[in-house]
Amino acid sequence: MKIFDEYKKPLKHKRVNATAFINIEKDSNAFQGYKVKKIADISFPFTLGKEDVIIDFGDHYTGYLHIAAQGMPGRIPDSPTLINFTFGEMPIEISEKFVPTTQSLSVGWLQNDYKSIAFMPYEGSLERRYSFRYLNLKREDSVYFDVQITDLFIDAVSAVDMEEAIPFSSGNELIDKIDLMCVKTLKECEQDVFEDGPKRDRRLWIGDLRLQALVDYNTFKNIDLIKRCIYLFAHNLNNEGLVAPCVFPDSPPYIDQWIYLDYSLCLVLCLSDYLENTGDEELPAELYEIAMNQIKYAEKAFDRKSAKINAPSFIDHGEYDRCIAALGYFAYTINHAKKLAKKLSKDTEWLDKVYDEVCKALLTYRDEDKGLFVTMEGEISWQSQVWAILSGALTIDESRELLRKTKETDPKIRMSSPFMTHYYLEALFYCDEFDTAVDYIKEYWGAMIDSGFDCCPECFDLRDEMITPYSSAILNSACHAWSCTPSYWIRTYYNKNNI
Amino acid sequence: MKIFDEYKKPLKHKRVNATAFINIEKDSNAFQGYKVKKIADISFPFTLGKEDVIIDFGDHYTGYLHIAAQGMPGRIPDSPTLINFTFGEMPIEISEKFVPTTQSLSVGWLQNDYKSIAFMPYEGSLERRYSFRYLNLKREDSVYFDVQITDLFIDAVSAVDMEEAIPFSSGNELIDKIDLMCVKTLKECEQDVFEDGPKRDRRLWIGDLRLQALVDYNTFKNIDLIKRCIYLFAHNLNNEGLVAPCVFPDSPPYIDQWIYLDYSLCLVLCLSDYLENTGDEELPAELYEIAMNQIKYAEKAFDRKSAKINAPSFIDHGEYDRCIAALGYFAYTINHAKKLAKKLSKDTEWLDKVYDEVCKALLTYRDEDKGLFVTMEGEISWQSQVWAILSGALTIDESRELLRKTKETDPKIRMSSPFMTHYYLEALFYCDEFDTAVDYIKEYWGAMIDSGFDCCPECFDLRDEMITPYSSAILNSACHAWSCTPSYWIRTYYNKNNI
Repeated sequence: MKIFDEYKKPLKHKRVNATAFINIEKDSNAFQGYKVKKIADISFPFTLGKEDVIIDFGDHYTGYLHIAAQGMPGRIPDSPTLINFTFGEMPIEISEKFVPTTQSLSVGWLQNDYKSIAFMPYEGSLERRYSFRYLNLKREDSVYFDVQITDLFIDAVSAVDMEEAIPFSSGNELIDKIDLMCVKTLKECEQDVFEDGPKRDRRLWIGDLRLQALVDYNTFKNIDLIKRCIYLFAHNLNNEGLVAPCVFPDSPPYIDQWIYLDYSLCLVLCLSDYLENTGDEELPAELYEIAMNQIKYAEKAFDRKSAKINAPSFIDHGEYDRCIAALGYFAYTINHAKKLAKKLSKDTEWLDKVYDEVCKALLTYRDEDKGLFVTMEGEISWQSQVWAILSGALTIDESRELLRKTKETDPKIRMSSPFMTHYYLEALFYCDEFDTAVDYIKEYWGAMIDSGFDCCPECFDLRDEMITPYSSAILNSACHAWSCTPSYWIRTYYNKNNI
Repeated sequence: MKIFDEYKKPLKHKRVNATAFINIEKDSNAFQGYKVKKIADISFPFTLGKEDVIIDFGDHYTGYLHIAAQGMPGRIPDSPTLINFTFGEMPIEISEKFVPTTQSLSVGWLQNDYKSIAFMPYEGSLERRYSFRYLNLKREDSVYFDVQITDLFIDAVSAVDMEEAIPFSSGNELIDKIDLMCVKTLKECEQDVFEDGPKRDRRLWIGDLRLQALVDYNTFKNIDLIKRCIYLFAHNLNNEGLVAPCVFPDSPPYIDQWIYLDYSLCLVLCLSDYLENTGDEELPAELYEIAMNQIKYAEKAFDRKSAKINAPSFIDHGEYDRCIAALGYFAYTINHAKKLAKKLSKDTEWLDKVYDEVCKALLTYRDEDKGLFVTMEGEISWQSQVWAILSGALTIDESRELLRKTKETDPKIRMSSPFMTHYYLEALFYCDEFDTAVDYIKEYWGAMIDSGFDCCPECFDLRDEMITPYSSAILNSACHAWSCTPSYWIRTYYNKNNI
């Protein structure tokens, strides 16, 4: 057995019953234009005929749909019943048809399935796992007869139970609600690996893993799963010895050859966090060389003359120049590498040298007049400022001033993912801007709750309900673990500062 | 356990591999306008991308499709692969879209299914059983990548193996081919019950059962299945104690309340045939009263004055007056009842009396001038003449003359189902018209083979390739056991007469 599979454990299964019949109504005042209206509590059996039936399971779940059906009393179904299932994390997925474009993600991601039932009474499950709260049932046969649905439940799966999370209460109702949403999000994404989101990719991305692990250390403490995932990256390097941005975890695990350099470097952060949170030196020591090789690769790609790193980085969704952010991220990683090296009694001299060179390059982008970091082409982004702060190249006072100036200027290129927002929060906490950070969490994540999300979404913009990195918000993941780090910040700082 | 389930046995499973890649081409000279053209032998893995792939399994099978798939070498499928499966017993089912009308059978009967594969490598089956030789594979995701199909086979099921059939050779190549097609058809329909056809209803119809049992006594001798099916009818009577036309066999067995009187009477034929073929008196004695009750009900529905039976009968597909055929069928049944009663030492006097009355009523339809049986409204059908002969109300010479006259006149209302054709053959054999019967079998069933059928179809007309009792020939069953009785006739008469 491969070492990463030694840490794989059976998932926990939980029966989740359907709770209510609902309508989804168009409402221009509702989030994304759709409002959920409860019709009645679920009671069995219920009739499925010519009219669609929409079901609410009361919360977001990840699992396998189980259905039982029979004919109406005194009338046997004398031809097969073809049922179409449309699953939705959000009402828009039930109500709007997806129109694929050549730019869009594959329509294979739509949570849409069929079951052809030749004989009743019937009882069975859908083979594919879905991630949803809402379910639309539609007959696609000729509906010459009604049928009765006698049972409908989710065999919900996760590596953890909500009850296992370390209890936490801040005393503030909104903060506690946000914490609950974040913990639930992490729970839904903890499966055989830390999935980015259970609706779509269901893959292990290292950028996401780092954030998920940070929250997990403070909630479920599922250390085995963290180890499994770190090993999955470390033991599946690409042809150049680089950590892949993501692992397709199914056996055999598979990686592509393309990279995001920030994601490759992220292994350093994972090991540093792991050591800090578990005190276990064995794993970081074992994988130390692999982690350092990521820095060595980045150093080679780092062109001191042009002050650029010649390799692609993710940083955040969107179209903008990542050169400043990439340098800041590199410096931030080296800082963590130095911490790790010291704890493991390894040489740090070479790291100090690279760190200084990277910071020097980064500072060439500092525009003293504007008080901001600006690219050669004059581009100013939130991402550049945040990563300039996190690089550690500035003093705390300079950092705080840069934060102030950024907020004042409010550059048009804004952070678009909650993933990037995590690092903005880190910048705020780094500058001791506790109140600003907490207010930001309340405003941004509080708005998610107000919008009807049960879990933290993949992308969220207070100013644009239909924001999507794809061609349609229907494809967005409404349960995405890179958005669940408020639980990390809240639990760390409320505990530390006893706010 | 119910007695009918005591005779239920596990099905036999057989792995059947895909044999060839084919094209189905439009060809006005081909049967139903479509010609199968082989492209190549199957070899694994094969690619499934933007283009549909059509597979030939080399023969007709009934079972569960099994598929295995993986990504192309060096390219993992990074979104789910949605595959649409269209199954066809005949090429037209693959090539033409079905347009449902309000008159048509439910579109639920179409052999069309989906599988959404989230991760590869994948291996699995479709849940619903299908009946087919041809399979069209179509990608319904965005097809951003090709996949490889690494295995594709049918887990074919039947209560019997072809190898179990009693060997038979007539010395005539065409007759042997027809016999093989018939035995194969019966094999495909022998499942947990004698199904009418594995593609559609999959139900136990007693009119079909009688013919299937006749063939089975001469081929597989699956007596347990025959007993199971007879019990299923006898132990699931309707509210008036009548045998239902069909039983939905799944637990619990279900019957509708409507009847076809000829089908209710058919229990008498099943018991009579059973006794004759097995020599076992126990089952017929046990169910004797139930069988006689069908005759008593028919007697009550028989209006001597109007010479009509006031109850619906099936007789054959089509729109025509069934009054003469229904009387002929009733008389035919009473004849079998008398034979059964004698063997079981029961009273036959009352049967003699009813028989004479029914024959008397039947003969009122005899038109001496025309030499045919004609309804009050002057309607002349093949069905009326055949059942007048089988009633036994005429002498053999009269019957032979009626047959001659019928052929000469060729009434416009023709037999439309091979089920009815079976009774036409019986009339021929009854009149000792061996050569005519054998020629008819060669012509009619030979034409089925020439048309590309692997099994005997539900309906077949030499003059109308698109004949259907439904709204589209796509819904026809191309494997229907009521059409497989040539094996009964051939095996009985070739053996008896040593032709």
